[in-house]
Amino acid sequence: MTTQELVEQIYKKESFLCIGLDVDLNKIPKHLLEEEDPIFEFNKTIIDATHHLAVGYKPNIAFYEAYGVKGWKSLEKTIKYINTHYPEVFTIADAKRGDIGNTSTMYAKAFFEDLAFDSITVAPYMGKDSVEPFLAFENKHTILLALTSNQGAFDFQTKDTEGKELYKHVLEISKTYKNSENLMYVVGATKAEYLSDIREIIPDSFLLVPGVGAQGGSLQEVCKYGLNNQVGLLINSSRGIIYASDKLDYAKAAAKKALVLQTEMKKILQEGK
Amino acid sequence: MTTQELVEQIYKKESFLCIGLDVDLNKIPKHLLEEEDPIFEFNKTIIDATHHLAVGYKPNIAFYEAYGVKGWKSLEKTIKYINTHYPEVFTIADAKRGDIGNTSTMYAKAFFEDLAFDSITVAPYMGKDSVEPFLAFENKHTILLALTSNQGAFDFQTKDTEGKELYKHVLEISKTYKNSENLMYVVGATKAEYLSDIREIIPDSFLLVPGVGAQGGSLQEVCKYGLNNQVGLLINSSRGIIYASDKLDYAKAAAKKALVLQTEMKKILQEGK
Repeated sequence: MTTQELVEQIYKKESFLCIGLDVDLNKIPKHLLEEEDPIFEFNKTIIDATHHLAVGYKPNIAFYEAYGVKGWKSLEKTIKYINTHYPEVFTIADAKRGDIGNTSTMYAKAFFEDLAFDSITVAPYMGKDSVEPFLAFENKHTILLALTSNQGAFDFQTKDTEGKELYKHVLEISKTYKNSENLMYVVGATKAEYLSDIREIIPDSFLLVPGVGAQGGSLQEVCKYGLNNQVGLLINSSRGIIYASDKLDYAKAAAKKALVLQTEMKKILQEGK
Repeated sequence: MTTQELVEQIYKKESFLCIGLDVDLNKIPKHLLEEEDPIFEFNKTIIDATHHLAVGYKPNIAFYEAYGVKGWKSLEKTIKYINTHYPEVFTIADAKRGDIGNTSTMYAKAFFEDLAFDSITVAPYMGKDSVEPFLAFENKHTILLALTSNQGAFDFQTKDTEGKELYKHVLEISKTYKNSENLMYVVGATKAEYLSDIREIIPDSFLLVPGVGAQGGSLQEVCKYGLNNQVGLLINSSRGIIYASDKLDYAKAAAKKALVLQTEMKKILQEGK
C-alpha cells in the first residue's frame, strides 16, 4: 500500500485509528474457546465490527508465536482475512525484528511477501544493514522504534549521545538509509511532549503511536504536537478496544470503544481543515 | 540448564563451539528437497554428525519464520530432537526479540517453556521492562545484544553516550536488572579489540560470539581478550560449518569443519590450564 492510499483512507473514514490484535486466550470470551481456532474467530469478529472505524490492524506477533504452530495458523488466517475482505486496511506486523543483512531479508520476505503485511516494526540497535533489507521492498513500510511508550525507554533511548538524545540519532541517521521514504516510526503516546522535537527532524513521516488508553497517553496531546499536513499519525489501541467486554457482546463493545476514539479523531481532523 | 552445567560440558568436550542452524532451502543439498521436512532432515543429520564437537546449537528463528507454519514445525521438531537425544547441549533461540512487559513475557513463554530452549537473544533498545520478563525464568539465559558483528553496529552501539560508548551502558545498566545473573551478551568476533574493555565491565558473564569464519573474525583474537576463568565464551559458526558441502557428504564435511574449530579450541583450553 502506498502512503497516499493510507492518507486517502484516513480522510474517507475520518479516522487514524489502528487496532492492536494482541489476542490472549486468557482474556477472550470463554465461549470462543470451544471453536477450532479461537484466536482467528475472535479477530474476525472484532475486524468485522470495527473495520469502518479503523484504518489499520496491528497483530503483535508475540501473542501468536506464544501458541506455536497453532498461533502461526491463526496469524496467517487473520492477515488473509483482512487482505481478502478489507484490502483497503493498512496492516502492521508488530514484530520488532532486526538482525544482520541476510537474516533481515528472511524476516522481510516472511512478513511482506508470504504473509503480505503492509508494514513491520523493526528495532534500530543493529543499525543500517539490519534495517535496509526491509526498506528494499516497494510500497512496504518499515516502522522503526524511535521512542517507545514504556518506562524502559529511559534506559537508553533518551540518553544524551553526542549532544542529543539517542532516539534523535535514530531518526536522523535512519533518514540517510537507502529507500528511507519507506520509513515510519514508533513514538509512544506517553511521550507526547517530545513530539515537537521529533517533528522538527521528521516532519513528513508517519508515526505509529501506541500507549493511548491503557498506558495513559492522551490523544489530544499527541495530535497537538504530532499531526502533520498528511495527518501523519496512526494511533494504536489494543486492550482498551478488544477487551472492552469478555461476554457475548464483545464485538459490539469493541466497536463502541473504537467509535469513541474515531469520533474524537473526526473532530480533530475537521478542526485541522 | 545452569551455567555450571554448560561449563562442565565445555571442559568435557574440550569445545566452546556453537553451531548456527540457519537453514536456507536454496543452500542445502538438493536431494533433501524430496524429504517431507527438508529443514528438519538437514538439521538432524548435522546435529548427529557434530554433537560431540559442539556445546550449543543456535537456530536463527528468521530462517524458520520465513517458511511460515511449515518452518515453525521444523523448528519444533529440531529443538525437540536436540532436547531428547542430546539433552546436555545448550540451545539458543536466536530471535533478537524485545517488547514491553506482557509481550516479552509471551515471547519468553514461547521460547523457554513451549519450545524449551535454554536461552534466547534479546535486543536492548526498549530497556529494563523489555528484558526483565525474560530474566524471570530460572535456569534460562537471556543473551542481550551488546556489540554486534555487523557494520551497522557503528550507527548507534559505539556512539559516545555520556562519556562512553552506548554498548557499555547496555552492559552496565543491564547488570542492575533483576535476576541479571541470567544474562549473557552478544559480542561480535569482528570487534575482538573491544573485548578487554568489555571484560572489565562484565568479567564473569558468558559471551555469545558470532562472526568467526564467514564474517572474518579471528578465534585467536577473541580468546586472547575474551576468555575468563570459566571460559565464558561461546563461539558461533553457522554458514562456515553447515554449508561446507552441498553434496551427499554434507554432514561429514560439516563435522570436518567443526573439528578444525574444536581442535583449535582444545589447544586454547589446554594452554589456559
